[in-house]
This record gives sequence, C-alpha cells and structure tokens, in this order.
Amino acid sequence: MRLTPSQIERFRAQGFLVLPELFSRQEIAVLRDALPALYAEDTPANIREKRSGEVRTAMGLHLRHPVYRRLVRHPRLIEPAFQLLGDRVYVQQVKINTKAAFEGEVWQWHYDFATHHAEDGVPAPLALNLHIFLDDVSEFNGPLWFIPGSHERGPVPAALDIETTSYPLWCVGRDTVADLVAAGGIVSATGAAGTALIFGDCLVHASPPNLSPWDRRIFSLIVNPIANAYTKTGRPDYKHHRDLTPIAPLADDCLATAPCVAAQ
Amino acid sequence: MRLTPSQIERFRAQGFLVLPELFSRQEIAVLRDALPALYAEDTPANIREKRSGEVRTAMGLHLRHPVYRRLVRHPRLIEPAFQLLGDRVYVQQVKINTKAAFEGEVWQWHYDFATHHAEDGVPAPLALNLHIFLDDVSEFNGPLWFIPGSHERGPVPAALDIETTSYPLWCVGRDTVADLVAAGGIVSATGAAGTALIFGDCLVHASPPNLSPWDRRIFSLIVNPIANAYTKTGRPDYKHHRDLTPIAPLADDCLATAPCVAAQ
Repeated sequence: MRLTPSQIERFRAQGFLVLPELFSRQEIAVLRDALPALYAEDTPANIREKRSGEVRTAMGLHLRHPVYRRLVRHPRLIEPAFQLLGDRVYVQQVKINTKAAFEGEVWQWHYDFATHHAEDGVPAPLALNLHIFLDDVSEFNGPLWFIPGSHERGPVPAALDIETTSYPLWCVGRDTVADLVAAGGIVSATGAAGTALIFGDCLVHASPPNLSPWDRRIFSLIVNPIANAYTKTGRPDYKHHRDLTPIAPLADDCLATAPCVAAQ
Repeated sequence: MRLTPSQIERFRAQGFLVLPELFSRQEIAVLRDALPALYAEDTPANIREKRSGEVRTAMGLHLRHPVYRRLVRHPRLIEPAFQLLGDRVYVQQVKINTKAAFEGEVWQWHYDFATHHAEDGVPAPLALNLHIFLDDVSEFNGPLWFIPGSHERGPVPAALDIETTSYPLWCVGRDTVADLVAAGGIVSATGAAGTALIFGDCLVHASPPNLSPWDRRIFSLIVNPIANAYTKTGRPDYKHHRDLTPIAPLADDCLATAPCVAAQ
C-alpha cells in the first residue's frame, strides 16, 4: 500500500484523503467483533455520552485487545503515514468514536492540533489522523465534515468548549469557520464500511449528530513523529500515549492471522 | 402548473414530491426581501430558539405582509393541491421555518397529522404541506429528511415532546422509526432556492441541526379540505387559522405584480 503522487498532492492541497474500502468486509468484521467486550468494560478509557450513558469514545484500544494491537501496525495505515511523515512515528492515540443510532451527539468545528498543542505540548502540527469506517457512513448517521484547504491557514484561533458535549474540545469560532468555508466549502466524508480517511492536524472539521437508526463507529489512530513528541503529560495516557517506540508495520494479512481470530 | 400523472403516482407511493426550482430567483428575492421586517416584529407568532433567541418559526405571514398574502394563493402551489385534494381547501397554517447558520436546532422524527389531530381536532390526515426553499438547501444546513412510504402505515404512534427543542412536537418513537426506515430508507430533500416540496400529513420526517455558515429558510403553507376542518381551537390562530374561505388562485405572475414590489 503506497499513496500515489497524485494522492499525496491532493492531501497536501486539501488536507485530507478518502480511501474507499481500504479494508475488506472480513477485516471489518474482525474489528467489530471485538467491540461488545471492549464497550462493556468499566474504565475511564470508555468515555460515555452525557445524556444516555452510551460509549461515545473507547480509547487506548491497542493496549486492551490483540486485534487492535495489530491494527495500529497495519501497513495499509502505517506505510502511507511513513510516506507523509517519515518512518519514525509513534502511536499517539487509538480510539473508536461511536455515534450510536438516535443518540450520537454533535462535534463542533475544531482541529486536532489545538488540543495536541494546548493539552500535550506537541510542538508542531504534524500528526496524522487515520480513520477506518466500521459501519457504512452516510449523510444520515453523523459523517465527518471537512473544510478543504483549511489546514493551509495554519493553526487558526480556537477556544476550549466544555459545555456543548461530553468531551472538552478546543473549538474554532463562527467567524473563522465562515471565512474558511467561503474559501473551501464543506465536504462530507462518507463511504462504505472499510473506507479509510487520512487527515492532518490543522484540518478544520465537525460532525452532525446521528438522528438515524444506523450506528456509526469509526476507528481512529493518531500517529506523530517521535521528533515532535508531547512535552506535557497532564492528560491521561489513553489520550496521548507515552511510549515513543517507532511503529514497525506488520504484514498485510495481519488481521486475518490475529491470535483471537485464529483461535475461533 | 399541473402535476403529471407520474408525479401524482409518485406522490401517492412515496408520500412526497420534490419540484426543483419551481419559483424563480427573482420571485425568491421578493419573498426574502420581506423577511427582515417580519422577523423584527415583537409578536407571539415569531417563535424563537431556546438558546439564541433567534426566530426559528415566523407564522401567520399571509396576515402580516402583502407578498405572503399573494403567495398563499399562488397557482404553482394551489393548482397541485387542487389536483390532490379537490378545489375546496382553506389556509391552515403559513410560516417560515428558519434554521439560522450555526444555530438552527434539530427537529425530531414526526408527522404533521399527529399535531393536527391532537391539538386541532382535524378528523383525517388529508392536509398537504407545501414548501418553498428560500435558500439553497444542502446536506449541510438542515434539510428535511423523509422516510419514503412511511405515510402508508397511516398515523403511527406518537408522543408529545416538550423537552428537546423550543417547539412542542408530537414525535415518533425510535422503534417505529427504525421499522419505517428499514422498509423505506431516508431521503434528504435538497435543492436550490426556489425548489418546492409537497408532502402529506402522515409522512414521517425529521431534520438535523444547521452547523454550517449558511442560513436555511423554508416557506411552508399547509392547506386542508374545508370538509376536514379543525374541530378544536385551543391553539393560537396563527397555528391553525379559523377562516374557512376556499382558496382562489391568483395569476402565475402574482408575485411580480405584488403591491409592495410594484411600489419599489
């Protein structure tokens, strides 16, 4: 798995890439099968919706399940990251963002570096967010909305929002969003389960609530160059892992041969 | 303006029709120009958002402005209504539903007859809701979502929701919505300003909030057969008008020749 020169060029210009069905239905089934047990765990790494108590975000998964331990070294995620960042990167954060049917809340307009810089002391906006859709994602179940090109303005002003939703988030103000959208528009990142996204640390994005009867679960791996590591450790380690071991990719069939799969 | 037989057949089967750009940009400009003055009025017929105080719904417009007095008799709305309901119908409700940029709230899954029956004592689900988009409506600024065919199940169970939003609404429960969507899916009613919608009193619909920088204003005229009129008058008249005079359509250019337009 290598990005083509035109994909790299598009990533640099727009700030994101959509890779339709990068993972097979069978691989997605392996990832989904692990979820009920993970969601049932009583751990602070399972962050729950304010109103319903359902798991909104399950974090630190590579330390909690053998399938996810493999997924964070999957070459279809890591080889593209090496192309964009060089080959000395570490696992910064590993999670699934769930938007449960009828329940999933809005995420306000934000970009990840605002949090990475303010909370973790990450020096530069280099980290990549690598997503895999675990469900079909449509306009109806809370897709990510990207503002193409918004990363080019560098880190725009942001302020901490602790009121709107269950998860404190550094958000971008309305005037700034209006300016960015006037220039770049909005793109909804939709696709079948197995579709992957790559987006950078300054790309401004949001997502609407899930009013539909369809769950929307997305796996997210954030990788960051070791030379650009955290300088603060105020947040729990499942929000920014401390282990700076360089990621070494596994074989392309690593999910099919994962221990808990082989054992079935 | 007459619906074709295939449009009528589609309306009967799906429960709604989308009529792209039924009104011209110039006609939409006439309708929009009237809004700042109407929204500035301090009247209970302007219903405001719980959080922001912005006008969410402006009602009774045909009694408040000469352009809207004409619009409720516009042949491009009324002739199709005559085809579907016969020619003895009255003006039940006239409003603009605004979803302001960044502010507009969710509308939960509902159908209009639940309210018309419970609140106004309307006997049968015959009323039609005729919409005109006053702004371009996309997936990003809070379009209506229809469940095609949901009207065929007749009035499904509904319960009054006075908590979620600023406007009390008889809502359909999650299990029912899941059943209906499994059968019919969801369709997002989008289009350029000037696009019209026609949908029936039992069609289940919802709409997401408006997180975008784009306002979303939709004009809505509800017409009902005089033989099926209200039997209760508990709600204010701007929610269900008492005047049972049959609607008589005007000429097709009635907006271009409206008094306040001619005076400019």
